[in-house]
Amino acid sequence: MKLQPVKGTRDFLPEEMIKRNYVIEKIKRVFISYGFDEVQTPVFEDFDLLTKKCGEEIKEQIFYFKDKGERELGLRFDLTVPLCRIVAANPQIPKPFKRFCIAPVWRYEEVTKGRKREFYQCDIDIIGSNSMEADVECIACAIDCLKVLGFRDFEVLINNRKILDGFIELIKADKSKNVDIFRAIDKLKKFGKEKVRDELRKCGLSDEQIKNLFELILVSDNETILEKLKDKMKNIEVGIEGLKELEEIFEKAKLYGIYKNLKLDLSLARGLDYYTGPIFEIILRSKERIGSIAGGGRYDNLIEMLGGRPTPATGISLGIERIIEIMKEERMLELPKTNVKVFIANVDEKVKGKAIEIAKKLRKEGISCQVDLMERNLKKQLDFANRLEVPFSLIVGLEEIKEEKVKIKDMKSGKEYEVKIENIIKFFKNQQ
Amino acid sequence: MKLQPVKGTRDFLPEEMIKRNYVIEKIKRVFISYGFDEVQTPVFEDFDLLTKKCGEEIKEQIFYFKDKGERELGLRFDLTVPLCRIVAANPQIPKPFKRFCIAPVWRYEEVTKGRKREFYQCDIDIIGSNSMEADVECIACAIDCLKVLGFRDFEVLINNRKILDGFIELIKADKSKNVDIFRAIDKLKKFGKEKVRDELRKCGLSDEQIKNLFELILVSDNETILEKLKDKMKNIEVGIEGLKELEEIFEKAKLYGIYKNLKLDLSLARGLDYYTGPIFEIILRSKERIGSIAGGGRYDNLIEMLGGRPTPATGISLGIERIIEIMKEERMLELPKTNVKVFIANVDEKVKGKAIEIAKKLRKEGISCQVDLMERNLKKQLDFANRLEVPFSLIVGLEEIKEEKVKIKDMKSGKEYEVKIENIIKFFKNQQ
Repeated sequence: MKLQPVKGTRDFLPEEMIKRNYVIEKIKRVFISYGFDEVQTPVFEDFDLLTKKCGEEIKEQIFYFKDKGERELGLRFDLTVPLCRIVAANPQIPKPFKRFCIAPVWRYEEVTKGRKREFYQCDIDIIGSNSMEADVECIACAIDCLKVLGFRDFEVLINNRKILDGFIELIKADKSKNVDIFRAIDKLKKFGKEKVRDELRKCGLSDEQIKNLFELILVSDNETILEKLKDKMKNIEVGIEGLKELEEIFEKAKLYGIYKNLKLDLSLARGLDYYTGPIFEIILRSKERIGSIAGGGRYDNLIEMLGGRPTPATGISLGIERIIEIMKEERMLELPKTNVKVFIANVDEKVKGKAIEIAKKLRKEGISCQVDLMERNLKKQLDFANRLEVPFSLIVGLEEIKEEKVKIKDMKSGKEYEVKIENIIKFFKNQQ
Repeated sequence: MKLQPVKGTRDFLPEEMIKRNYVIEKIKRVFISYGFDEVQTPVFEDFDLLTKKCGEEIKEQIFYFKDKGERELGLRFDLTVPLCRIVAANPQIPKPFKRFCIAPVWRYEEVTKGRKREFYQCDIDIIGSNSMEADVECIACAIDCLKVLGFRDFEVLINNRKILDGFIELIKADKSKNVDIFRAIDKLKKFGKEKVRDELRKCGLSDEQIKNLFELILVSDNETILEKLKDKMKNIEVGIEGLKELEEIFEKAKLYGIYKNLKLDLSLARGLDYYTGPIFEIILRSKERIGSIAGGGRYDNLIEMLGGRPTPATGISLGIERIIEIMKEERMLELPKTNVKVFIANVDEKVKGKAIEIAKKLRKEGISCQVDLMERNLKKQLDFANRLEVPFSLIVGLEEIKEEKVKIKDMKSGKEYEVKIENIIKFFKNQQ
């Protein structure tokens, strides 16, 4: 019998769950403070729905199966497609609809240290608003999450698909190839000019066109560049629109106090097919090589394409698995290994009733405790508490109990206290 | 394009998620207070592992599939098998291992109002202790959960598989048929004597044996009955052992203050194959017809059967879907429809900056708020806040802002307040 979890999946034991819950709870609180409400959807969806707009690469990665009613299903590969289905199915939901979802998704990919086949996504989306303020709010919320988790050196790269569309018009490239061209551009930072040049040639671009394109995108300066670009694109409607959106983003970002975090990056393109306007990624300056820790953008057509009414939408996804890995590496998640705060040891079965009585009191106050369930002697009870790394042991002794007292030991410092039973709750409340 | 979730699954929109999270959070807090730590496992497991000990009926209900590496997998149908796998794979975990898990499972069954194909289970288990105190602690913890949720009229039915084994020996029935006989007995309350008599005949029991069995099990009285049973089973070792375990449970239950909740029910058998000792179910007296709202028991052999070391184990599962349904019916879940506390309306785009500034302050304090993201006029902003059922609207006006004031409206009572900007946080903290 194989006892390991299936390849690409993981078990989360208590120590790991405590870290994950810590991160998720902090993020959830920020999401809620921004007025997002939670939504959950089934782990599997209609295969047709999932593959309608996902592209070939992801289609190949879906865990596909049939249920016993011969329905063709797939495990969800992201949280955006189910969200769009919900919005399409529930037109009565008031707009803007601000929803968050933190949940697992599945993709059959090569398993590496950082890449699993079952992994969590952590998304906020604003449905129904075409204002650039919605995009800015998503970015501001993601930034606040990162701050609350203790990150400082992040940077938001920003671009707009319409500007890239404008560039394609400007260099007179084949418009029908734009998604392929975007995917090539998106690899610039990772693979360099040479490799991207090859890919762009495959998209039918001449060396002259490629040179012009590189000149356009390989600049970055938040505002002075905008005037120059406007001039260059004065006859290209889509490009002008993209530039206007970008200006609006900068303007709103000032109101939200995040302007200084934004960096225009005209080489940012993002891989997904469905983006239509602003796109953004958050990177850590000190960890640029590992790629982005959040990313998103506007997808104004997706809901309609999946069968709903035309509905603008934008959102950002925190790369929560990567964030947790970095936080562990950087010792930003030095947490207890157990939720248990107190182990209540009894020196003898005769005082077990007293131990249970004390446990009941602590539990009523929400203070996590365990009593001995193995009929062990005192030494073995304390050994167990030590192995579990419970911060306090409370010892119910035969003599002490006559005076309504117990001994409490701080397992880390070794300090011992004699505490009246009536003061136990107060003692632990003061320790927090 | 089908926009409804796949048959047997559900979308949980914010209103529903708020109710579910309320219940889950309350339960979690009780679990943690009892010293249980959380564990999560993948949604799918090796098909062989899942089916090793699940019985034919459940095997037929598993969502089966192969991944692209031709691994035979299945969506988990419960949380106990994955727990046993984890324990078998991680013998280093200190014992007793007290873990909780609240997570979805999947079974392909007939869909009814109360039965879905994707549903949550909510389990606590204590691994490694063969003391009856572990069983009692699980029951006590479940009772505290129900109390915290507001239930009062519950009753814990209790029995022991060893006593049932004793009965089978006593009536000289075929021991190899015991699981089938247990399953038949378990249907007594639901289907009555006639139907169960038929099933017992199919297990090879004579009418005389059935009569004797009914006489044995259709009594219930916590303690006086025990002496009589002991006498009857004096030569049947397994029966005597079961009776001793039962006595120990009653004794510990007194220490835990839950003795009055226990009711010996010798007709309780439970459907699962793997129980080996105490078994229990919690019912609501006022809702007996709907069946149990929690159930569990001891399964001392399962971990070894799945490939681990011999390890005693016991646990209880709260029927969380049923509990939520009852709480909704009984109006025990009258909660807000959104997490948003405040909608910050601006009378004019000119004061939008001020609205955002106030939003930032509220968000920093963890007070959930939204600003207008649709460039709507004041009336439409307030209409939206009303539809979303946000409890407070805060209006940033042109005149008021000059005096550093805003208007706050309690949307339910209609009451209006003029509040200094510096006092907004205090105002909302006082409302909680």
